[in-house]
Amino acid sequence: MKRIYSVLVENRAGVLCKVAGLFWRRCFNIDSLAVGETDDPSVSNMIIVSSGDDHTLEQIEKQLNKKIDVIKVKTFHEEESICRELVLVKVKYNRETRKDIMEISQIMDAQIVDMSASLMTLQMCDTPDRVKTFIRALKPVGISEITRTGTLAVTRNS
Amino acid sequence: MKRIYSVLVENRAGVLCKVAGLFWRRCFNIDSLAVGETDDPSVSNMIIVSSGDDHTLEQIEKQLNKKIDVIKVKTFHEEESICRELVLVKVKYNRETRKDIMEISQIMDAQIVDMSASLMTLQMCDTPDRVKTFIRALKPVGISEITRTGTLAVTRNS
Repeated sequence: MKRIYSVLVENRAGVLCKVAGLFWRRCFNIDSLAVGETDDPSVSNMIIVSSGDDHTLEQIEKQLNKKIDVIKVKTFHEEESICRELVLVKVKYNRETRKDIMEISQIMDAQIVDMSASLMTLQMCDTPDRVKTFIRALKPVGISEITRTGTLAVTRNS
Repeated sequence: MKRIYSVLVENRAGVLCKVAGLFWRRCFNIDSLAVGETDDPSVSNMIIVSSGDDHTLEQIEKQLNKKIDVIKVKTFHEEESICRELVLVKVKYNRETRKDIMEISQIMDAQIVDMSASLMTLQMCDTPDRVKTFIRALKPVGISEITRTGTLAVTRNS
């Protein structure tokens, strides 16, 4: 089972290391991680996606709450949240495959953000599943480089 | 000065901690961090944005290259790369402010991905500067929550 932790932390050197260390020492797996700024420059937000059994996942939450630099922990399941991922993909192209890339981009609602004589860079932002589909669709064309963020998530408004 | 490190690492427990620890022990500042999967499940990609003087930034690169779990380090400047950030913003709304939010979204090319009776969730993916502009534009309306990824970057195709 996957659980998503949204952790507000003090923006201080070493905090990332402490949180990463907590997962490491207890052999909790981090599937993805995104660290970004918040409205307040002294506070950062970490979105951690982890998988494991219920007991492990509760343990993680408890341990996170004990950390002195952790301001607030929210946990939620994938189903009850809006999840988004961002990916940048460089693909090789020629006159024959260019049309394929354009059509895949159109179908998956991706943007071509850069191009040279033989390479195009595509940007796509969607659910983790659709990002996977997009990458799979581009594979036969020839991917030269992929960069992905971890999953970003907020709870659904109810 | 800002520098962007794209670091391919072995997808093993503890690697994140080792890399974070390197920055911490040497008091190198991490402005943002994005950890995501690659094509190969045994390899993760970390995009680290750090700021400091030239000497510090070169030091970081050398230290990263020494780590056993680090497969490849690429560094580049903000100007020579395509940088993108993803943000999810929850805003409060009422009948009066709804139109403002819709127009800001249209101007900044953001999508409304969820709504309830009093909250909307907006998704926006663009350059770090435009993400900042978007957040600034929404502030007077009433932001309830912001989640941002770190900066994702690839070199420009030349």
